[in-house]
Amino acid sequence: MNEPLAIDPAEDADDVAPAAPFSEAERAAVYRAIFTRRDVRNEFLEKEIPQDVLMRILDAAHHAPSVGYMQPWNFVVVRDQGVRCAVHAAFEHAARAEEKMIEPSKRLLYRSLKLEGILKAPLNICVTCDRNRNGATGLGRTQQPDTDILSAACAVQNLWLAARAEGVGVGWVSILRENELRAILSIPDGVAVVAYLCAGYVDRAYLRPELEVKKWAQRLALEDLVFEDRWGERPPARK
Amino acid sequence: MNEPLAIDPAEDADDVAPAAPFSEAERAAVYRAIFTRRDVRNEFLEKEIPQDVLMRILDAAHHAPSVGYMQPWNFVVVRDQGVRCAVHAAFEHAARAEEKMIEPSKRLLYRSLKLEGILKAPLNICVTCDRNRNGATGLGRTQQPDTDILSAACAVQNLWLAARAEGVGVGWVSILRENELRAILSIPDGVAVVAYLCAGYVDRAYLRPELEVKKWAQRLALEDLVFEDRWGERPPARK
Repeated sequence: MNEPLAIDPAEDADDVAPAAPFSEAERAAVYRAIFTRRDVRNEFLEKEIPQDVLMRILDAAHHAPSVGYMQPWNFVVVRDQGVRCAVHAAFEHAARAEEKMIEPSKRLLYRSLKLEGILKAPLNICVTCDRNRNGATGLGRTQQPDTDILSAACAVQNLWLAARAEGVGVGWVSILRENELRAILSIPDGVAVVAYLCAGYVDRAYLRPELEVKKWAQRLALEDLVFEDRWGERPPARK
Repeated sequence: MNEPLAIDPAEDADDVAPAAPFSEAERAAVYRAIFTRRDVRNEFLEKEIPQDVLMRILDAAHHAPSVGYMQPWNFVVVRDQGVRCAVHAAFEHAARAEEKMIEPSKRLLYRSLKLEGILKAPLNICVTCDRNRNGATGLGRTQQPDTDILSAACAVQNLWLAARAEGVGVGWVSILRENELRAILSIPDGVAVVAYLCAGYVDRAYLRPELEVKKWAQRLALEDLVFEDRWGERPPARK
């Protein structure tokens, strides 16, 4: 179909414009960020992240999609050594508890993994989600109330990819109890902790995900994860 | 600090390599994808998405971070017109319920918004999260069990940015009841629906988020969303 104007031009003339395609080089750069992004735990350099670089990375996060344009996120940038020591102690506490729940045959490997860079990275970022930013009944949230949390997770991914393009590595620490983290960072009721991230420049990176290198798990085959029309139905061969 | 090798070279010599910085043009391309990504509802062209392009976009999703390298996602690509009509009916049902919950002063505006492209887009993609892919006690999930859902949301954002770079627009339909969608797509117990997406080529796009153009909400100031060390504490002025 030839459809040069998919939108009523009278309605949106000033706000809708031709979308120039990405060049091959631009497309490759986007895929490079996506495919070479790593969860960094140990490779952080001490070099500070300049404020303008940090704000660009946070602005990328702030441009994530959000349900009903709710923008439910906040970013608590943690630099203070005392605060980070408290978070690190909370990690140690949670990791000891987690170790007991890991399959016995994998516990030795678990203990050998470096799972956080809380003190080594020059800064940490806690990404939160204000559950009530637009009141309880925002557009797109009445049928799926947790979409605000998903929006905040999309912000984390934007942050991570922008950081990768800036030469900044990011690691997500999920071995933390939310109630301990809330107390340390004074997170108020009604605001959820979505991610606790460590960030810093890196000049070396794993070629494959570290948990694959260290034989914790293997990448699944994409073809096995794709269905057509209904769960379990394989797509026909296509060009 | 001079730290040319942040990692023990004996341990990881084959798996860790210098991370070449992104060029200015590459960095700009990543930000272009992030800042010009839009939630597309109405601008879809009829042109089919070739299979290799679709698989590249899904492979980008598959390279999202996942807790404990769990890769909990599946992708149900919906092309069948009957299935899409059933999903569209479920949307209408949910939207009628949502409209009643929207602040009365905004209901007229709500009714005027185009909130989905289920039938107009050449295909839909349902992104799911298998809650038990690695058993109940995977690495990084014992203290924050919902991090698998967050991983799947990161996959959605990767998918969206890769699509943008390919000239493919994506819209997220959250006005759907999960139980109706599960029944239509035969999603089994233990698998959560994370996102229902519409995807298709676009050649025109909104310059700003559509909900901003249509005065549903305004972008918040980034500076107001950033705290330092603890919730509510403003960062000092920095260069």
